[in-house]
Amino acid sequence: MGKEQLIVVGGVAAGLAAAMQARRVAPSLSITVLEKTPDISYGACGLPYVISGLIPALERLVLHTPEYFRERHDINVQLNTEALEILPARSVVRVSANGERRELGFDSLVLATGAAAVCPPLAGHDLAGVFVLRQLRDGRRLLQFLEQERPRAAVIVGAGYIGLEMAEAFRARGLDTTLVESSDMVMSTLGGELRDRVVDELRGRGVEVVLGERVVAFEGRGEQVARVVTESGRAFEAQVVLIGVGVTPAVRVAKDAGLEIGESGAIATDANQRTSAANVFAAGDCSETLHRVSGRRVWMPLAQPAVRQGWVAGANAAGTTPEVRFAGVVGTNAVKVFDLEVARTGLSPEEARGAGFDASIIEDESSTRAGYYPGGAKILTRVVYDKSGRLLGAQMVGREGVAQRIDVFAAALQANLKIEELNQLDLAYAPPFAPTIDPILRATKQKR
Amino acid sequence: MGKEQLIVVGGVAAGLAAAMQARRVAPSLSITVLEKTPDISYGACGLPYVISGLIPALERLVLHTPEYFRERHDINVQLNTEALEILPARSVVRVSANGERRELGFDSLVLATGAAAVCPPLAGHDLAGVFVLRQLRDGRRLLQFLEQERPRAAVIVGAGYIGLEMAEAFRARGLDTTLVESSDMVMSTLGGELRDRVVDELRGRGVEVVLGERVVAFEGRGEQVARVVTESGRAFEAQVVLIGVGVTPAVRVAKDAGLEIGESGAIATDANQRTSAANVFAAGDCSETLHRVSGRRVWMPLAQPAVRQGWVAGANAAGTTPEVRFAGVVGTNAVKVFDLEVARTGLSPEEARGAGFDASIIEDESSTRAGYYPGGAKILTRVVYDKSGRLLGAQMVGREGVAQRIDVFAAALQANLKIEELNQLDLAYAPPFAPTIDPILRATKQKR
Repeated sequence: MGKEQLIVVGGVAAGLAAAMQARRVAPSLSITVLEKTPDISYGACGLPYVISGLIPALERLVLHTPEYFRERHDINVQLNTEALEILPARSVVRVSANGERRELGFDSLVLATGAAAVCPPLAGHDLAGVFVLRQLRDGRRLLQFLEQERPRAAVIVGAGYIGLEMAEAFRARGLDTTLVESSDMVMSTLGGELRDRVVDELRGRGVEVVLGERVVAFEGRGEQVARVVTESGRAFEAQVVLIGVGVTPAVRVAKDAGLEIGESGAIATDANQRTSAANVFAAGDCSETLHRVSGRRVWMPLAQPAVRQGWVAGANAAGTTPEVRFAGVVGTNAVKVFDLEVARTGLSPEEARGAGFDASIIEDESSTRAGYYPGGAKILTRVVYDKSGRLLGAQMVGREGVAQRIDVFAAALQANLKIEELNQLDLAYAPPFAPTIDPILRATKQKR
Repeated sequence: MGKEQLIVVGGVAAGLAAAMQARRVAPSLSITVLEKTPDISYGACGLPYVISGLIPALERLVLHTPEYFRERHDINVQLNTEALEILPARSVVRVSANGERRELGFDSLVLATGAAAVCPPLAGHDLAGVFVLRQLRDGRRLLQFLEQERPRAAVIVGAGYIGLEMAEAFRARGLDTTLVESSDMVMSTLGGELRDRVVDELRGRGVEVVLGERVVAFEGRGEQVARVVTESGRAFEAQVVLIGVGVTPAVRVAKDAGLEIGESGAIATDANQRTSAANVFAAGDCSETLHRVSGRRVWMPLAQPAVRQGWVAGANAAGTTPEVRFAGVVGTNAVKVFDLEVARTGLSPEEARGAGFDASIIEDESSTRAGYYPGGAKILTRVVYDKSGRLLGAQMVGREGVAQRIDVFAAALQANLKIEELNQLDLAYAPPFAPTIDPILRATKQKR
């Protein structure tokens, strides 16, 4: 009898985390990672900063080579190898590599197929100069285009975090930049005064921001995109377009295999990251996870939970006992928009109401440092809570100290704290780091 | 019958917080604040930054004038007025102001007498040029001395937070600076590798650091200090000396009045900030508080709990119903040492063992940003936990993102989280703010 076989489909965050964790758990397991693109082990979140020029080369985003995994960890990585079909009952995966097809048997399988950038099928979406930015090769294509074609004007479709980061990147390259968003929010859940701060920052840095306008077509000059047209008939010049309207979980293979797909559209998993097939696990942007605040299974494609779900899937796929569990997420996210830090955790007011909570809101503005200490900045905080006083979420916008303060709210959500308990936290104070009463304490003191 | 009288002894953080909260609770209460110095309502924590020149004038530390409190809040502030004696049974306080003595009656009293800088009675401690730095007037004297005498060399006695901040301040003024500390720790509880980072930073900025040497005398040239001598016989040149060996709670009046003094030496209070006399409350640096981790009543003279205890004392002294409570502290503290951020919360390894815990330690170093993102820095984390896995404390040293990360540990302590639960936190990730796996998650993953 040969060695036990683990196959991991997908060689970025979740997939490699799974493979590495499986190796730690099972030193003699045979581990194969299948990656359909030519790239593995890269930090996709760094792409906007390569485009902006802050990071000097795309290769800087690559952490490890296939050789590293093979030589240091006895993990066999196969590039340009796509998993076409899974047969859980037969424990076989059919793959295609360099035009050839073959079958690989497995004892356990981890699906880390990720998510794909959504490219709406609008007129002209296939014109040259229209891009999405998700994988390393997307970044490679965009960079090459920017360097060869030297576009003058860019339009970004969608004010999610990729859209916001790319607005900064295009401006850093000197492009006239317009950001068009169909809703009246940014980062999909940020409205009101907090949204206004983000929009002000973008405008102050020369980005034209258009909210509440739906893009309906891309018009070309020859094969090359030239204008972006909205529902209301406005047209924006663009020699380059970045579509950042979201991502969709890559679940075709899982669905065809008869694995259960959750309501969110991502692969249904339990707390052990196991799918509806006993020897198939899923992790990362292709899979659902527990939202600890709403109690629902949700799809939250973000890098940090992806890696951690990968660890869990890999350990369990390698047979660790007792099985390990992923505790779920509370919905924490952060983005830099020029000099602004924007972060959120838990439920937004709209999400809280959608989840059936009778949600109340506090909004408060305060300083990040003692009033007399130079260099401080304003921080705008929104806190969402229910009738019982339970914290449901928080959103913050400011110029410093935002991401880690959101982490305090994230910890409070995890621990199910009430606003009154948050207001009792013993938080660090020193004039360079915080005012005597931290913005978190100030905001939570406003509860009536 | 006249109006109800509230007297507050002490006009800085806790005292004014109490007076203001009492006013919110009881619009018609007569409120008098007695302050024995000529100064009220100042941010004492800013003093080192005025000495360094970062803050251009001492007056910047003053938040409000006595007129502000009188005119805007109907609070009567009496400067240069010392409470000499309290007679709780008679509800009278005897005061001395401008050489005159008188009695004031009260219905309720808040003691916010603060803490005094310890000046050990060593030979030569009364030489000109030897300073402590606690009150605004201490800062005034030191500034005047520095400007008039133009000292060339400074010695700081004690590597607590004032000593560390003053090392930076003296270097900023161009003084040769030596920091002498009798223990082998800095910030009283920071040892080992974390201490070494702080010492390296100080030395890298030109501060001579001498640990494990006890100062025994100050020697003068005439009336003026000239040298600082240690137990081992070493002598350090100094035309100015800053003693930062700690503070002691100002409890003489409370003790003379027969109020219970706790084991820590500070005024014993309950969760309502009430002393052993029913109509006398205490708050801030003169009073004890609950340490939520050890479960003990401790003395923790820090600005943030002082203000919040003041709110509680003021509300209860003004008769709010139901009475409000102070939830206690977890021992959070932060200090900037040149470009280093140093912070702690909970119990240090030594404190944990002293409190009877079977404490284990994790030490881990990681980055504050994604590896490919420029400008990141190392952060060194120490986590203390007990056999059950319960978090007992954390200490961190790094160049960014330390104080707010300590706040995450502080929230976890408040919520009684185990290391495993901390390791499940859903923390913010974006390349400019954190690596995919935050230093908090990396460190807590090391637990065996």
